[in-house]
Amino acid sequence: MTSLPAGATTEDPDVLAAYSTDRATFCPSGTPRALVRARSVQDVVETLEWASANNVPVVPQGARTGLSGGANAIDGCVLLNVEKLDQILEIDVEEQIAVVQPGVINATLAAAVADKGLYYPPDPGSKDISSIGGNVATNAGGMCCLKYGVTGDFVRALQVVLADGRVMRTGRRTAKGVAGYDLTHLFVGSEGTLGVVTEVTVALRPAAARPLAAVAFFDTTADACRAVADHLGAGFRPPALELMDAATIEAVGKLRDLGFPPGVGAVLIAQSDAGTKAPEELAAFELSARKCAATEVIVSDDPAEADLLMQGRRLVGLALEQYPASLVDDVCVPRRNLAALVDGVERIAASYGVLIATCGHAGDGNMHPTVLFDHSQAEAAQQAFNEVMRLGLELGGTITGEHGVGLLKREWLARELDEAALWSHYQIKQALDPRGILNPGRVINSTVTGRGQNDQRSS
Amino acid sequence: MTSLPAGATTEDPDVLAAYSTDRATFCPSGTPRALVRARSVQDVVETLEWASANNVPVVPQGARTGLSGGANAIDGCVLLNVEKLDQILEIDVEEQIAVVQPGVINATLAAAVADKGLYYPPDPGSKDISSIGGNVATNAGGMCCLKYGVTGDFVRALQVVLADGRVMRTGRRTAKGVAGYDLTHLFVGSEGTLGVVTEVTVALRPAAARPLAAVAFFDTTADACRAVADHLGAGFRPPALELMDAATIEAVGKLRDLGFPPGVGAVLIAQSDAGTKAPEELAAFELSARKCAATEVIVSDDPAEADLLMQGRRLVGLALEQYPASLVDDVCVPRRNLAALVDGVERIAASYGVLIATCGHAGDGNMHPTVLFDHSQAEAAQQAFNEVMRLGLELGGTITGEHGVGLLKREWLARELDEAALWSHYQIKQALDPRGILNPGRVINSTVTGRGQNDQRSS
Repeated sequence: MTSLPAGATTEDPDVLAAYSTDRATFCPSGTPRALVRARSVQDVVETLEWASANNVPVVPQGARTGLSGGANAIDGCVLLNVEKLDQILEIDVEEQIAVVQPGVINATLAAAVADKGLYYPPDPGSKDISSIGGNVATNAGGMCCLKYGVTGDFVRALQVVLADGRVMRTGRRTAKGVAGYDLTHLFVGSEGTLGVVTEVTVALRPAAARPLAAVAFFDTTADACRAVADHLGAGFRPPALELMDAATIEAVGKLRDLGFPPGVGAVLIAQSDAGTKAPEELAAFELSARKCAATEVIVSDDPAEADLLMQGRRLVGLALEQYPASLVDDVCVPRRNLAALVDGVERIAASYGVLIATCGHAGDGNMHPTVLFDHSQAEAAQQAFNEVMRLGLELGGTITGEHGVGLLKREWLARELDEAALWSHYQIKQALDPRGILNPGRVINSTVTGRGQNDQRSS
Repeated sequence: MTSLPAGATTEDPDVLAAYSTDRATFCPSGTPRALVRARSVQDVVETLEWASANNVPVVPQGARTGLSGGANAIDGCVLLNVEKLDQILEIDVEEQIAVVQPGVINATLAAAVADKGLYYPPDPGSKDISSIGGNVATNAGGMCCLKYGVTGDFVRALQVVLADGRVMRTGRRTAKGVAGYDLTHLFVGSEGTLGVVTEVTVALRPAAARPLAAVAFFDTTADACRAVADHLGAGFRPPALELMDAATIEAVGKLRDLGFPPGVGAVLIAQSDAGTKAPEELAAFELSARKCAATEVIVSDDPAEADLLMQGRRLVGLALEQYPASLVDDVCVPRRNLAALVDGVERIAASYGVLIATCGHAGDGNMHPTVLFDHSQAEAAQQAFNEVMRLGLELGGTITGEHGVGLLKREWLARELDEAALWSHYQIKQALDPRGILNPGRVINSTVTGRGQNDQRSS
């Protein structure tokens, strides 16, 4: 009866191979049977109708910048890519909302709303290359979460195509609303396992002032962690409060000389977008830093200088690409355990003989210890990566603060959740995707494999 | 095998009658078979194990201050009341979180964290009498949502007892976390239909400055609505921006002379808790108000005077109790349709020959048109109440911004949601409560009635 959408579907093996992975390390990917580059919601509907009728797994994907393998191909699957659904459908200045398709790049949306005097805060590190659909699928975070929240905090409504091809609207355009279950936030962070998001309504804020910033240098990460606690304990909520350890600083230094003092053990960068009150906030930050043995503190006088101060943090991703291979972790711990996390990561690195550079969103307790290794160390690297998750759980934290579970951390989810929560996951997955065709085996082990057993592919 | 928890269970008809309703008008309530006043999580577990084994409906309830009938008894049900689970288990100043039992009164929690220099913002009108469990069950709002968000925005983790008595933890203590589906927010707002919440971990904020306030008087609600749009359009987010129409002002005036100018058509009250910047924010509000034909604007100089200015708004609930009967609606519309909503409500009142007093959270578009009537007008009142919901939907809004669906608005939920969203509700309900024993018939029509068909009640 149905077929994959004509004109949007390719079976060219080279194209399929190019679309078969996201940016995760150590995640297997299979051989897909087809790639659908959806040009419309109808293409998504037809793909899911066909896949549902034929019991073929579907892997939803967009910009494929994910770090957990959630968009990797499964043998025999259809890759359903929505990157061409890239229109900003509406920016409503009065209501302070935007309605976008999932393929819109995060930074594109941020710039478009800024042109209208508004602000879309969620700023994952991938903001220049990742799309809103993926940000929603993983409930992506970023630097500004401490003050403004994560992606999910800005999602008001979704259009979702269910596994069988039915189109559903969740949520609402209004500021508040409690009519029925919060389906919107059930789909946010569900990594393509419950439905395919085809439209997102996000809340916006009034534009913030261009941020000022300050950088503090410390001999030890423990001092820097104490400064984080001291500053937040004084009632401040900076839009960014970022930590870089010595290994991270060294990697960045290899890429560009930022004039950091020699032998620095840790750097803490704080922003303030409080306008006329920004100097006062940064003065408070300087006070906290000096109280906690900062060796030097630089406070910017203007936004351009603040940009320069942030540069070191922004270069981390590029700096770590200088190493043959890397495996980025994403644990989030209670803030009081931040120092214990950083310290424990150093011990793990020493014990497995790998380098781990740690930086991240110190204000949220969400760090990115990144194992840097050459390919001969792959097994040790993976073990070290796992040990970091184990440490995060031991410290009362979570295995993933913002990157998602995907394939990479699936086995670890069962260690974080209790039996009843895992049961609830399976029940919900089964309830909304009874045939188990949507991104099977991601987030949770599927009870239904759905791998094309009843393949009656139409011509 | 199992039995209802000894010592916590009563079958006294007078007690049962007293616990058989919440504060909703026009909501039927049945005759319960027993009331369990849980003293521990174990009591909740035993009650649900017994009810599940015997297929007996369970109505979870707490302070019973709800406005939608969600806590009303069902014939033959067990009322499972958690008001005695009223301990604040922990206030963690460094992590800025609190862990509480569901029976803790909202204002009690707010005061306890304020003592430690922290702030729990959600402030439903019922804050002095409603409990956190009920706030979570309905995802309660309040005045401060515009700036700070609703209950759900502050819930990090839950302990929930599932229908079969298993205990589940959702979410986490950390600031961020994306491990698995967002079960926490699926349970927030689910009105006791998916599980019984026995512990809530909430995020706190640093204490805000004591608010200043300003009151503006207008000849018409349309002018006041324009002032709302003007002030928010200038980039302000006051912690409260409240509208009262002429009927509300008259009702309050009957209770206490607040010295309002005679013949006022609408009042707008704005707060600012921006500390040293508060006078600047309120000056901007005054400017917006005067631009939109305010006849008078009073700006407070100090927090005590600000308290007095807020008094009129706070007296609304009491003022409306002067009428023989009332039916409070709760629609939320896009802000640009606020004037159309208030205007339409006036037409509905005229057409049904009832009085409707409208006030509410103008900044969020969330209004409480309250039908005031004597008992001879009950049918007209109910029709007018329904027409207000119809109008809210026509204006692109929702039938409930913060009170919940319960029994009162169940038939209307099907008008707000599309077929696929309703299907998803049924599927999720069936997945997590397969026997349909948890508050059946609330929020959605249950497919499983579960009304004690297999009653094998143990002694």
